[in-house]
Amino acid sequence: MHMENIENIRTSRVTPEPPLAEDEQDAENDLGWGYKDTRFEALANGSVVLTGSRYNLCGFEMPGLLPWLSKSIGADLDPNDQVLPQVDPEVAPARDLTAFLDAIKGVFEPDQLTQDDRVRLRHGHGHTGLEIYALFYERLPRVPDLVVYPTNHDQVAALVSAANDHRVVLIPYGGGTNVTRALECPSDEERPIVSVDMKRMNRILWIDERNRLAKIEAGAAGRTIMKQLAQAGFTIGHEPDSVEFSTLGGWVATNCSGMKKSRYGNIEDIVTDLTVATSLGVVERHTQCPRESSGIDSRRCLFGSEGALGIVTSATVRLHPLPEVSRFASLIFPSFEAGFAFLQDVERERIRPASIRLMDNVQFQFGMALKAEPTWWEERKSRLTKLALTKLRGMDLSQCALATVVFEGSAREVKAQQRELLRLARAHSGLPAGSDNGERGYNLTFGIAYLRDLVLRHHVLAESFETSVGWGEALELCRRVKARCADKHSELGLPGKPALSYRITQLYPTGVCIYFYLALYTKGVADPILTYAELEEAARDEILACGGSLSHHHGVGKLRAQFLNRVQTPAMNAFNRGLKAALDPRDVFACRNQGLLGGGNPQPAPNGG
Amino acid sequence: MHMENIENIRTSRVTPEPPLAEDEQDAENDLGWGYKDTRFEALANGSVVLTGSRYNLCGFEMPGLLPWLSKSIGADLDPNDQVLPQVDPEVAPARDLTAFLDAIKGVFEPDQLTQDDRVRLRHGHGHTGLEIYALFYERLPRVPDLVVYPTNHDQVAALVSAANDHRVVLIPYGGGTNVTRALECPSDEERPIVSVDMKRMNRILWIDERNRLAKIEAGAAGRTIMKQLAQAGFTIGHEPDSVEFSTLGGWVATNCSGMKKSRYGNIEDIVTDLTVATSLGVVERHTQCPRESSGIDSRRCLFGSEGALGIVTSATVRLHPLPEVSRFASLIFPSFEAGFAFLQDVERERIRPASIRLMDNVQFQFGMALKAEPTWWEERKSRLTKLALTKLRGMDLSQCALATVVFEGSAREVKAQQRELLRLARAHSGLPAGSDNGERGYNLTFGIAYLRDLVLRHHVLAESFETSVGWGEALELCRRVKARCADKHSELGLPGKPALSYRITQLYPTGVCIYFYLALYTKGVADPILTYAELEEAARDEILACGGSLSHHHGVGKLRAQFLNRVQTPAMNAFNRGLKAALDPRDVFACRNQGLLGGGNPQPAPNGG
Repeated sequence: MHMENIENIRTSRVTPEPPLAEDEQDAENDLGWGYKDTRFEALANGSVVLTGSRYNLCGFEMPGLLPWLSKSIGADLDPNDQVLPQVDPEVAPARDLTAFLDAIKGVFEPDQLTQDDRVRLRHGHGHTGLEIYALFYERLPRVPDLVVYPTNHDQVAALVSAANDHRVVLIPYGGGTNVTRALECPSDEERPIVSVDMKRMNRILWIDERNRLAKIEAGAAGRTIMKQLAQAGFTIGHEPDSVEFSTLGGWVATNCSGMKKSRYGNIEDIVTDLTVATSLGVVERHTQCPRESSGIDSRRCLFGSEGALGIVTSATVRLHPLPEVSRFASLIFPSFEAGFAFLQDVERERIRPASIRLMDNVQFQFGMALKAEPTWWEERKSRLTKLALTKLRGMDLSQCALATVVFEGSAREVKAQQRELLRLARAHSGLPAGSDNGERGYNLTFGIAYLRDLVLRHHVLAESFETSVGWGEALELCRRVKARCADKHSELGLPGKPALSYRITQLYPTGVCIYFYLALYTKGVADPILTYAELEEAARDEILACGGSLSHHHGVGKLRAQFLNRVQTPAMNAFNRGLKAALDPRDVFACRNQGLLGGGNPQPAPNGG
Repeated sequence: MHMENIENIRTSRVTPEPPLAEDEQDAENDLGWGYKDTRFEALANGSVVLTGSRYNLCGFEMPGLLPWLSKSIGADLDPNDQVLPQVDPEVAPARDLTAFLDAIKGVFEPDQLTQDDRVRLRHGHGHTGLEIYALFYERLPRVPDLVVYPTNHDQVAALVSAANDHRVVLIPYGGGTNVTRALECPSDEERPIVSVDMKRMNRILWIDERNRLAKIEAGAAGRTIMKQLAQAGFTIGHEPDSVEFSTLGGWVATNCSGMKKSRYGNIEDIVTDLTVATSLGVVERHTQCPRESSGIDSRRCLFGSEGALGIVTSATVRLHPLPEVSRFASLIFPSFEAGFAFLQDVERERIRPASIRLMDNVQFQFGMALKAEPTWWEERKSRLTKLALTKLRGMDLSQCALATVVFEGSAREVKAQQRELLRLARAHSGLPAGSDNGERGYNLTFGIAYLRDLVLRHHVLAESFETSVGWGEALELCRRVKARCADKHSELGLPGKPALSYRITQLYPTGVCIYFYLALYTKGVADPILTYAELEEAARDEILACGGSLSHHHGVGKLRAQFLNRVQTPAMNAFNRGLKAALDPRDVFACRNQGLLGGGNPQPAPNGG
C-alpha cells in the first residue's frame, strides 16, 4: 500500500489550454513605458491627451495637467518646448559568443536566439527614470550580447550549465519593469552577457481546484495569469502597479507587493513553492504543503534575490475564487494626519478591504488636474460639491487627503467592511467621496505610468521610491523627507522646485508602506541623471535615519546597493556572500561586484574565471 | 537635520522591570515532563490521579482512564504491574575543557558554569518518548561536558568565539522540550560539547506600544513572556503545546506553530526581527520595518535552522492588546469527515477564531475517560444528553468527532464569529456541545502531556508526530497512516494493537496540520525503542507518500534527517551545506554529520579540526 504514489490520490489537477500567442495589438513599446498604442501627447492648445483606449485616462483632452505640473514644479512646461527622444539609439556591438552558442546549439531552435540590436537594447535596461533618460537622450554603455527565449525548465538549466562552462554571465529577464537598475549591464564586466528572456515560459502547468493551488511558469506576465485563471474562475489577487507587464518570476526575485495585499497577501504569502535553476542544479521541495518545519528552507532566500542565485522557472501559487462582489469607495479627510489615524484604526480593528490607500493633498490635486474640461453641468455640480465640503463640512481642499478603497469578497463580507470603514472614517472627520473617485483612483495607477515619458520631453525627471516604516515614525518620516528634498534642492541651486508627494499604499500591524513621487525640473542642469540621483540619495538617507527600510517592494538592484551596509551587519553580508559562493561559485548570475550582497566590492572568487 | 537619529523620534519605547527570579514552586522536573509538583499516579484501586493543582485535570480520581487505555491498546494496564524509572541514571564523565574554560574565565561568574552530572544529564536530551525511555530505563550514551548560563548577547558571542578557537561544539538549550532528538549528543563527536542554556536571558528589552512591538531575549520561556506582557496589557498570542517551558529562541529554531495561529500567526509571522550570534559575528538588520525587499534576507534561513547556524539571542515580536473577550465553544459532528468539511468551509469563508481543532472519535472517547466518577446527578444528566444526541439527533457516539474552539477579540468580532461558525456547523450536521467542553479540550493539552511518563511505567511507549498536507489529501492520509501502522504492527508480530488517533490542529487556505498520537504496548518486546522507531518511520513513509510534509512544526532534528533527501533536491542540500560552511566553517554548531542539512554524511570540512 505504501508504494502507491500521491498522484493516485490527487484527482483534482487540471491543465488548462496554453495561452494564445500574444495579440499584435498588445505589442509593447521598446522605447519607453507600456503598450505601443498608448502614450501621452501634448497638444498645441496646451492640453494633454493619452492615446488609445486601454485606460480610463484615454481619449480626452486634459487642459489642466500641464498648468498644474508647471505650478507644482515652479517652471513653465511649454508644449512647444519639447526635447524628443532619439528614435534609433546607438547600441554597443555584440561580443563574441561562439563557444557558448556551440554548446547550446542542439538545445534551441534558431528563433529562440537573437543578437538583434534593438532587442538587445530593450534587454539592457529596466524602468528607472535614469535609465529611460539615458535611453532617450544619451546611450546605454553596455547591453546584453545575446537574448535567448527558453520554453521550458530544461532549456534554462542547459543555459546555466553552458554559462558555467564558458565564462558567460546570465541575466534573467521577465517584464523588464524593474526600477532598481537590476538589468543594467556593468561596463567593467569582461565576460559576455546573455539575457534570458522568460516570456515564452508563460503556461499554467496545472490548477488544483481542491487545494486552490496552481503551478505557473515564471515567465507568465500578470495580464496572462489573470486572464487564464479568470477563465477557470480564480484569481491570485496579486496586482503590483506593473501587473500588466511584470512576471511571476520577477515578482519572486523582487519580493513584490501588490495593491490588494490586504486580502491576498504579498508575493511571499501567495507563492507556496518554487522551482529554480541554479549552478548546482534544480532547487525545489517535492511536497506541496501549506506550511512546514523541515529544516533550513533555502527557498526563502530566493525571495528578493534579484537574479543573483539562479533563475526561477516556475512557482506554485495560492488561488482564490473570483470575488462574488467588487466595490470601490473613496473617503475624504480634512488632513493627511486625520486619514492616517483612520488607517491605523482600520488595521487595528483588522478590517481588510482588498486595497486601501491614502493620498496626500498633492496627489489629490493631481487627480483633479487629470480631468477633462468640465461641461457646464459638471462644473455646476462640482462647484456645489466643493461648496458643500468646504462651507458645510469645513473641509479645506488645499489640505485634505483622499483614501481610495477596493472591496472584494462575498456580498456579506463587503457589506460588513463598508459599514465598519464608514464608522471609523466618521470618527476621524472623514466623509464618503463616492465610488467613482475610488475606482478612478485605483485605476489611475496604470494610466499615469505613461506620464514619465511625457514629462521627460518637458525637461522633468520624475521617479517613484518607497519604504516601509513603523506607525509611530511614518508621519515624521514624510515630513522630514519632504524637507530634506527641499534643502538639497536649494543647496544644489537647481531651477524650479522639487515636487514631492506621497501616499500610504499598504497597511501592516506594525506599520505602513509609503510610496513617494519626486519630480525635478532639469532644464539647464548640467547632468540631470547625476543631479536627480543626488536628490534621491538624500531622500533615502533621510528615510533610513527615520527608521524606514531600504525598500518595501522595489528591491535593491544597483540603485540602492550602496546603502546595504547601513541596514545589515557584516555577518549578514558574509552570510549572503557565502551563500552566493556556494550556490554560484563562478558568479554566472553576476552580482559579486555589484553590491547586492552587501559588504563592498571584494574580488571575484579565484575560480570565477 | 539628517544626522538626527531615529531614537529621537521614537518616544514610545519602555523597558519593563526584569522578571522576578523563578519561584521555587515553579521548579521543573529533571527526570520527565513538566513541573516537579505534577505527575500522574496510578492508585491501587485502578484509578489515576494528576497531582498538584495547576491543571484542570488535577486533584481528582479518574477511574476510567486505565480501563480505556487497556481497551485501546489491546493489553491490560495493571496498576500493580509498573516498571519504575531509575532515580539516579548513570551519567558519562565530563571531558577535559581546560583550554576552553581558560579562554572564557574572565567573561563568566562561577555560578554561570557547571559540570554537575544531573544538570549535564538534563541538557543531553529533549522529549521524544525514545529519549525519555532511555533516560528512565537505559542510559544516554553521551551528554554535554559543560553547561553555561549566559546573561547577555556578548557572553554568547564570547562562547562562540572561544568554541571556534578551541575545537568545542556548542548546543543551544532553551526549554529542552524538542521532540526531534535535537539535543542528543552524538557518541562519535570527538570534540567536547558545551550546552548553552539560555534561561537567564529572559528579559523584555523594550516594549514599543505605538508600533506594537517588543524586543525579548531568546531564553525567555512562554510563561514568562505571557505574564510580563500581560502586565503591560499585551500578548503575542503564541501558544505551542509546550508554551509553559519552551523559549522564544527555541520557537524560532524549530519554526514553531502555536494553537492560536489562526488569529496571531505562526512564529515566522510573529517575529519581525532577530539577533543571532554566529561564528562570523552578529546577524541582524538595523531597521524595524513591517516588511521589506532589501535583497536576500538571510534571517529567514534562521527559522527552522535548529541551532545549526548560530544562537538566537533576542527577537522582536508583534504585540496585540489583550483580547477584550475570550470565549470557548465546542461542536459535535456525526463523523470526522463531516467535521473536516465544516473546517474547510470555515477556512474558505475566512472565519478566524483564535483556535479551532477537530478531534477524531478516539480522542473524543479519550476525553470522556479523563473524567471523574460521575455523581448520581451528573450521570443522569449525561445519560439524558447522550440520549438526546443519539435518539433525537442521530449522533452515533462511537463515530462522532468533536471540534473545540477558542474565540478572542473584541466583543463584536467574537459575536460575529460565533454566529458564523454555528451557521456553518449546522450545514454539516454539527451541534453545539457546550463551552465547557471547548475550554476543557483546549486546556487538556497541557495536562495530558504528563501522561506519557505514566504509561511508560505500564509498558506503553506513546509519542506524537505531525504533518501538513493539502485539503484534498488530508482524509486519505489519515486513513492510510492508520492502516499502515496496523499493517506494520502485525508484520512485526507485536503484542496488543497500535493505538493511533489524530486531530486537525491548524487550518490554512491550502490545507491543514494533522497531529497524530501513536501508542505501542511493549511488554515482552525485545527493543522497545527500535521497535517504536520502526513503526513511526513506516508512518512517516506513508505520510510522505500521501504528499504530507516532513514536519509542520516539530522540525527535523536527528529523528527525521534520514527523510530530508526525499523532500528536497540535491541542490537544496548543497545550498544548505554551502550556507553552513560559509557561516560556521568549523562546525561549532555541529550538524554537518547529522543529516539536518540533507545530502548524506560527508566528512567534516578540512578546517573543521
